[in-house]
Amino acid sequence: MMATMTSPMRAALDAAEAAARAGEVPVGAAVVRDGAVIAVAANAPRTLGDPTAHAEIRAIRAAAQALGTDRLDGCDLWVTLEPCAMCAGAIAHARIARLYYGASDPKGGAVEHGPRFFAQPTCHHRPDIYGGIGDREAAALLRAFFAARRED
Amino acid sequence: MMATMTSPMRAALDAAEAAARAGEVPVGAAVVRDGAVIAVAANAPRTLGDPTAHAEIRAIRAAAQALGTDRLDGCDLWVTLEPCAMCAGAIAHARIARLYYGASDPKGGAVEHGPRFFAQPTCHHRPDIYGGIGDREAAALLRAFFAARRED
Repeated sequence: MMATMTSPMRAALDAAEAAARAGEVPVGAAVVRDGAVIAVAANAPRTLGDPTAHAEIRAIRAAAQALGTDRLDGCDLWVTLEPCAMCAGAIAHARIARLYYGASDPKGGAVEHGPRFFAQPTCHHRPDIYGGIGDREAAALLRAFFAARRED
Repeated sequence: MMATMTSPMRAALDAAEAAARAGEVPVGAAVVRDGAVIAVAANAPRTLGDPTAHAEIRAIRAAAQALGTDRLDGCDLWVTLEPCAMCAGAIAHARIARLYYGASDPKGGAVEHGPRFFAQPTCHHRPDIYGGIGDREAAALLRAFFAARRED
């Protein structure tokens, strides 16, 4: 059971590493349904020239396309970083059942920080939320990325 | 000057009407740069099977594609309804300069309601914001749509 529970975050972390190699802020996400990863995506706004192309948005769109529906009922989202407001909103619109995330993001996060989207009375869908999963590796990736950028 | 100022909201309202005809919640959006509408989009999550396909997200993505960049500096967004958290976040990521919106949305809005995204200390980009533009027509479209659905 542990292996199936941790493998989606491994896929998300691998996508985050790929994002870093592409010069993007290293964040990755995976959508899981019935224990199977049905979509994996890396953060790619610069590469795609699309300000909405965060890992979560891309994974949700890919999963919706794979399933042929705009409602991902029963699907879980795994992401290496605390989602921002845009992605938290998308998670609610997609009706994601469980949200697993890695590192906290005091600057841009919207789950435990800032808008605390899912804690708002107006929030129309709240997934079960599990933070801090794979957070050390996720945070290390981000630290290395921003340290390298400062050295440029 | 008045004609150029109001025409983007006319384009957005026309897109909202098209959304209603397609069975989607009637919301439309337009992106303007240097006085010219460079993207118009209708709300289309069901039609496209994409939970992120709100009018604002689609208009921002189309504008970014048209300009070949993920930063819409100097661009304005016109939308018939107060943006939700997902769309408010996308507006900040895209660096939209001015946000013009129509009807208030106490249920799902994230500008004057709920998460009040742009008022959060963590918000990294705030457009100038103008609400209530074309709001009577925008609200009438929404009322008619939901009244018709209740009669189904």
